[in-house]
Amino acid sequence: MDIAEQRRHFPALQDKTYLNFGGQGPLPTPAITAICAAYEQGQVWGPFSRRALDWVAEQEHLTRATLATTLNVAAADITLTQSTTQGCTIVLWGWPWQAGDHLLLSDGEHPGVVATVAQLAQRFGLTWSTCPLSYCTEDTITILEQAVQPQTRMLVLSHILWHTGEVLPLAEIGAFCAQRDIKLLIDGAQSLGVMPLDVTGVDFYTATGHKWLCGPAGLGVLYIHPQYREYLQPTHCGWRGLQGFTYQQPQWSPDGQRHEIATTAWELGVGLQASLTLHQSWGTATQRYGRLTQLAAELWTQLGEIPHLMRLLPHPPPCGLVSFRMANYSPETLAQKLEQRGILVRAVAAGNCTRASIHYLTTGEELTQLVQALRELQGGTDPHVGTPEK
Amino acid sequence: MDIAEQRRHFPALQDKTYLNFGGQGPLPTPAITAICAAYEQGQVWGPFSRRALDWVAEQEHLTRATLATTLNVAAADITLTQSTTQGCTIVLWGWPWQAGDHLLLSDGEHPGVVATVAQLAQRFGLTWSTCPLSYCTEDTITILEQAVQPQTRMLVLSHILWHTGEVLPLAEIGAFCAQRDIKLLIDGAQSLGVMPLDVTGVDFYTATGHKWLCGPAGLGVLYIHPQYREYLQPTHCGWRGLQGFTYQQPQWSPDGQRHEIATTAWELGVGLQASLTLHQSWGTATQRYGRLTQLAAELWTQLGEIPHLMRLLPHPPPCGLVSFRMANYSPETLAQKLEQRGILVRAVAAGNCTRASIHYLTTGEELTQLVQALRELQGGTDPHVGTPEK
Repeated sequence: MDIAEQRRHFPALQDKTYLNFGGQGPLPTPAITAICAAYEQGQVWGPFSRRALDWVAEQEHLTRATLATTLNVAAADITLTQSTTQGCTIVLWGWPWQAGDHLLLSDGEHPGVVATVAQLAQRFGLTWSTCPLSYCTEDTITILEQAVQPQTRMLVLSHILWHTGEVLPLAEIGAFCAQRDIKLLIDGAQSLGVMPLDVTGVDFYTATGHKWLCGPAGLGVLYIHPQYREYLQPTHCGWRGLQGFTYQQPQWSPDGQRHEIATTAWELGVGLQASLTLHQSWGTATQRYGRLTQLAAELWTQLGEIPHLMRLLPHPPPCGLVSFRMANYSPETLAQKLEQRGILVRAVAAGNCTRASIHYLTTGEELTQLVQALRELQGGTDPHVGTPEK
Repeated sequence: MDIAEQRRHFPALQDKTYLNFGGQGPLPTPAITAICAAYEQGQVWGPFSRRALDWVAEQEHLTRATLATTLNVAAADITLTQSTTQGCTIVLWGWPWQAGDHLLLSDGEHPGVVATVAQLAQRFGLTWSTCPLSYCTEDTITILEQAVQPQTRMLVLSHILWHTGEVLPLAEIGAFCAQRDIKLLIDGAQSLGVMPLDVTGVDFYTATGHKWLCGPAGLGVLYIHPQYREYLQPTHCGWRGLQGFTYQQPQWSPDGQRHEIATTAWELGVGLQASLTLHQSWGTATQRYGRLTQLAAELWTQLGEIPHLMRLLPHPPPCGLVSFRMANYSPETLAQKLEQRGILVRAVAAGNCTRASIHYLTTGEELTQLVQALRELQGGTDPHVGTPEK
C-alpha cells in the first residue's frame, strides 16, 4: 500500500517530521475515533449493565488476543499491564528470591528498571551488577560469561538498547541462560511493533503499545513463559486475577490474568486494536520491519557523510533507532533546534546522544529533511540562531 | 441548581434508572468531550513535543491537585493509581514487614484486598485475621479491642462497607490505632465522592475516581500520611517516581509521586477533572452529601414498607448504599429482573444482597420506580415472567 495514503490516517504526521516513535508513537484517527465511540457507547448501555459487562469481557479478550499476536504467543501467556516498567515490576517482585541471589543487567537498561532492581535488592538482600553490552565490541555471550556469578538467578536485558539501538541476540542469550538455570527478563519497549518477535528461550518479555505500535499511552503487555506462570507470585494483585478462595488461600486465574489488578480503561484496548489493524492493513510485521530497516540504514549512511557527527552504532541499525552525537551541540540543544524546524527526535541522556526513531511510516523525504537540518546546524547556517552553540 | 438540569449532562441517566454508582458512575458529556479533545490536541502538537510534554506535566499537576481537594489533603500526599486496589497493594507491599507481624481486616473487605493480604502474608511470614464489623451490633472499638493482637501492625478497613453500607467511625478508629502504634489503611471506594472526607488519624487512604466521582475507569488515588511517605518503600515503581541515583541507590521523589510507575493515560485525568468541576457547579461536597443521604433515607424508609424485604442496615444509611434481600429472589435474579425494567442496581455476593446506590444525581422518581418494581416482583405481578421465581 502507498505509504502516503497510510500516513493520512495519522494527524501528527501531517505537518511534522515525526521521528520519535521510540518516545511515543502518534495515534491514528481510527484509534481516536474508536476510543471516543467506546466512551459514548458505554453511556448508552450504562456502566455495569449486562451489555456493558459483556463488552468489557469482549475487550479484555480482544486486547489480550491482539497483544498475543504481536508477540507470537498464546493469549493465556499474556498479562495486560499499564507500561513496560510495570511488566518488569510484576516479574521482579513476583520471583521467589532468596537472600544472596544475584541479578545481572546490561549497562543500558532504563533507569526505571534499574531503580526497581536496586530497591528489590535492598528489600530481599540480593546483589546486582551490570555488564557492558551498550557498545558491544566483543561477542555478547563472551561478555555475559565473564559477568555471571554462581548466584546469578536472573538476567535483565533490553531486546533493543534504547540509546544505541543495538539489538541483542535473544536466541543465543536464551540458550546461555537455560544452560545455567538463569531466568531471562527482556525489556521490549523498543522492539514491539518494530520487528517480528520470537520469544523462544525468553522467560519474561515486557513491552508497551504506545510506542512503535502507535496505541494510546497506558496499555502494556507482559509475556510469562507458561512454565513460570504459577511459580511467579502475584504481588500487586487484585480481583481481576482472582477466582476465589480455598481455605482462606486465594485461587488465582490459571492464565496471565492472575497478575492483573483491578478496574482499567478498556477504551485504551479498543484504541490499540484499531492501531494494529491499520498497521496490518499496510503490511505484515515482516514487511513493515523490512521497510523500517531499509530507511534506518539509509539514514545511518547519510549521517556518516556529515562531518563532526558520530553515529553510535558501527553498522546500519537492525531496528528503528539511529543515534548520534554532533560536535558543538549537546543532545538536548540539538533536539530543541530540530524541533524548532518541525523535526521531532529525542535526546537520550543515557547515551549522551540524539536519537531519531525510524518507523515504516517514515518517508525518504523526512530523512532528507533531518540530514539537511543537521548539515545546516553543523555548518552554522542555522537561520534560527546564526551561529552554532559552543 | 436544578437536578434535572444537572442530569442532562449525563447520557446514561437519560433513559435509565441508574442506581449503580457504587459499581461505576456514569461519565458526563463534558468528561467525554474533554478526553476526546485531549487525544486530538495531543496529535496536533505531536507526542513528546515540548508543548505535549508541558501538557503532561500540567495534567499531572492538575489531576493530583484535583484528587487532593476531594480528600482535603495536600497534593504532595497524593499518589496517583489505576484503582482502589492498586492503592492497597502499594501500601501493603511497601510496608517493611517483619515475620510474625499480624494484619487485622474487617469481615467485609473486598476480595481483591483480602487476596492481596493473604498473598503478602504467605510471602513475608505474616498472619492475618478478620473481625466482625459488617453487621455491627456492638461498638466498633469494642470489637477491635477484642480482635487486635500484640503483633498487630496494620488495620485494613473500608470507610464504608461495600455490601451493608455501614460507615465506620474513622476518627475513633484512628485514635484507637494511634494508641497502639497500629497503622490504619482505609479503603475509600464507597466514600470518595459521597461525603466530605477528613482523613485525620488515617495513615493510608485509597479510592477511585470512577465510582461516585463519575470519572473514567482506570484512575485512582492513594493518600499517604507524610509521616510514612519515606518509610513506605517503593515496590512496583519506575521512572515516574525516580529523581536519579546516588551511588547506585535510587533517589525517589520526595512526594507521593515516588510510588507511581511509568507512562499513563493523562487523558483520564482530564476526564476526571471535568466530572468534578461539574459536581462542584451543582454544590459543595457537603450539599451533595446532604441530598444523597436524604434520598437514601427515603428509599430505606420506603423499602421498610415492602413485605418480605429485609434491609441490611437497621438505620437509614449515612451513605449512598441501600442494600436489601427480598424473599423468593436471589440477589442476582433480582438485579436481572430490575435491569429488564431499566433499573440498574447490583447484586453483591459478599452480602448476599441487592444494592441500590443513591447519588445526589438520583431523583425521587427513581426511588419510586425502584420501590414500585420491587412491589410488583414481590407480588408476582411481574409482567416479564408472570410468577416470582421460587
